[in-house]
Amino acid sequence: MSDLSQFVIPRGFRFGATKAGLKQSGRTDFALIVADAPASAAAAFTGNRVKAAPLLVDAEHLRATAGKVRVVAINAGNANCAVGQAGIDAALATCRAAAQTFSCKPEEVFPSSTGVIGVPLPAEKLIAALPELAKSVGSESDHFQQVAEAILTTDTVEKTAFARIEISTPEIDGPGKIRQEVRIAAVCKGSGMIHPQLVPHATMLVYILTDAAIEPTTLDSYLHDAIDVSFNRISVDGDTSTNDTVLLLASGASGAIVGPSNSEFAMALTQVCSSLARQIVADGEGVSHVVELRIDGAVSDGDALRVAKAIAHSPLVKTAWAGCDPNWGRLMAAIGYSGAAIDPETIDISFGELPICRNGGRAPEYDENTAHAYIQQPEFSITIDLRQGDGSCKFWTTDLTHEYIRINADYTT
Amino acid sequence: MSDLSQFVIPRGFRFGATKAGLKQSGRTDFALIVADAPASAAAAFTGNRVKAAPLLVDAEHLRATAGKVRVVAINAGNANCAVGQAGIDAALATCRAAAQTFSCKPEEVFPSSTGVIGVPLPAEKLIAALPELAKSVGSESDHFQQVAEAILTTDTVEKTAFARIEISTPEIDGPGKIRQEVRIAAVCKGSGMIHPQLVPHATMLVYILTDAAIEPTTLDSYLHDAIDVSFNRISVDGDTSTNDTVLLLASGASGAIVGPSNSEFAMALTQVCSSLARQIVADGEGVSHVVELRIDGAVSDGDALRVAKAIAHSPLVKTAWAGCDPNWGRLMAAIGYSGAAIDPETIDISFGELPICRNGGRAPEYDENTAHAYIQQPEFSITIDLRQGDGSCKFWTTDLTHEYIRINADYTT
Repeated sequence: MSDLSQFVIPRGFRFGATKAGLKQSGRTDFALIVADAPASAAAAFTGNRVKAAPLLVDAEHLRATAGKVRVVAINAGNANCAVGQAGIDAALATCRAAAQTFSCKPEEVFPSSTGVIGVPLPAEKLIAALPELAKSVGSESDHFQQVAEAILTTDTVEKTAFARIEISTPEIDGPGKIRQEVRIAAVCKGSGMIHPQLVPHATMLVYILTDAAIEPTTLDSYLHDAIDVSFNRISVDGDTSTNDTVLLLASGASGAIVGPSNSEFAMALTQVCSSLARQIVADGEGVSHVVELRIDGAVSDGDALRVAKAIAHSPLVKTAWAGCDPNWGRLMAAIGYSGAAIDPETIDISFGELPICRNGGRAPEYDENTAHAYIQQPEFSITIDLRQGDGSCKFWTTDLTHEYIRINADYTT
Repeated sequence: MSDLSQFVIPRGFRFGATKAGLKQSGRTDFALIVADAPASAAAAFTGNRVKAAPLLVDAEHLRATAGKVRVVAINAGNANCAVGQAGIDAALATCRAAAQTFSCKPEEVFPSSTGVIGVPLPAEKLIAALPELAKSVGSESDHFQQVAEAILTTDTVEKTAFARIEISTPEIDGPGKIRQEVRIAAVCKGSGMIHPQLVPHATMLVYILTDAAIEPTTLDSYLHDAIDVSFNRISVDGDTSTNDTVLLLASGASGAIVGPSNSEFAMALTQVCSSLARQIVADGEGVSHVVELRIDGAVSDGDALRVAKAIAHSPLVKTAWAGCDPNWGRLMAAIGYSGAAIDPETIDISFGELPICRNGGRAPEYDENTAHAYIQQPEFSITIDLRQGDGSCKFWTTDLTHEYIRINADYTT
């Protein structure tokens, strides 16, 4: 979905990026998303109780404006986290400068940061870069792509997703219905809590834009439903960042009004979020296998998720995948300590369509060589049926490789 | 504490080990601990809901005898787990044979297994080895050492701990007090959920013996208090085994009666358990750094433990330690997502005596080179003060290294 030429950017937004001098690599590191008029906004932030300064400012700004955003200002190369009041001051100074540049209120600016923690953010570099950057923003796909590049840290690929749907709305002053085109474009960065050497952890930053007209509270509901089955269903290493942010903006520029229960819009949004979530997992640190977990037959969906997370966070399971080892006993152990209600004697496990474990013991059809060959694939699925109830979930995760250790343990003083 | 000649084995027990042919290496793999008369017994088993067959038999036998054990029969090389009814049958067959050999009830036999999962245990090999093994048991330290060797799987060292204390007890039919010697000897295996290639996970097996006279219910209370601050305070990789077992036997052969609140005995038992727990961590898979975490100032001890476990299970923290990287931002992130009640602005972190983070930001005295040098040591401590209350805990854990990946991901078909 990354060939931009096939898609059209949502109307009502402009984009741009520049080099503010934060990345040691010298690459672009400061991006703007500018709405032509204040856009409806919904956001979700990390559950981590240590939150970076921009997240605190964002939450306050969204409260102050009742969910309206004009400018999103994103820097990579510095997380603006764990630096005390100086972090808040730096974020606010950036907002004030952006507000002046685009003639809006400082509260209509949404700052984001990703990069090194514990080092003060040099806001003056961002402020100095603003005037030229403001002149360069545009609404073409090339401009959108600039944002996708600038927000990366150790990601190896840009991550974007797009959708275009037609919405049926009642004809104004008429008996019929009209069909209106709605566009969704999304961009994100993140590949787990990655980062070599100096930077303590990477962050997932996600920006989703649509030109539908949607009220902020409705937008919020759509966003959380979509997050729940996408970004909240992935794990690379189980470490939750201090800076994770998902922002959904609706410009209304398409003229199409989307009310509270539009299944077409909900489906398109979920599709876009799921695509980005899987792109993040696939670009996870040192990843050599992407695994789709399908948990069925749990007492509840919550129990299914417990099983998925225990498996996704087990170093023994993840290293077995790295070695293409069909060691299903490690799955049994993780299921057992997940906290989910289970009966060891009703657990069935299959790799793709291959029966591996039945009734908690080795399946009669189990063949180690076939199982080994199956999980040599770069992407594969594992289905676990607990046969206890109707709870289920899907979850995407990765293996744990030498390359992960190399990236995170290599330290040069 | 491993120089056996300095210690004396608790009276009332005999020990032995032989080669039953379960270990591919051809080493000794079947060990017996035999009490001269039924000993008081207390046991703790894994919290994993997938439990190996011997654990189910053990729990049933302890119920049937109200906490009495004559024979402990331990095999390494096969976990007797995830094989259905065949596992129960194999454990019971072993118990019947041992009971016949030592003229006791089958319910007075306590079987244990560690090794490969999902493969039926060839009980006939154990049963065939029993007669010769029974003839060889003895009460010298060399015999005890045979058990320490036979129960190992991929452990690189034998793990034992000893204590000798004097207990004051009222003189029978007299006004004074007499002091009686009580001995404790303990042996264990385990180095995390380790195991190369075929075996899905290793197991912690712990056997603690004393010649004090203690009622089973009292013994149970002593055991759980000691476990709570030792074996329940360590983690190598966060994977909880299906076979973990801790057994404490009291023969009474010293003649010293230990009642419910004997602090000398409690302290000696805790010391022995803590010693074994730290030996397990130090022999953890691929470990290059052992880390003592001291969490202070939590709202509760439970919250302190949440913080310790989040840190101990964070791949990013553990890989930073492997690389001697003083990256404290990763600690902040783990503290933040631990679930404990915290205020990011009151968090203090120090490495040993070195101030690293104060009030949630970099400490003014922080010096990266000094911090780097400190965590180059093979053992070091990290203290985190949350400044929220009086809750605290100590916890021992390890780094996550290339060697861990090599051991667990290498697969040869």
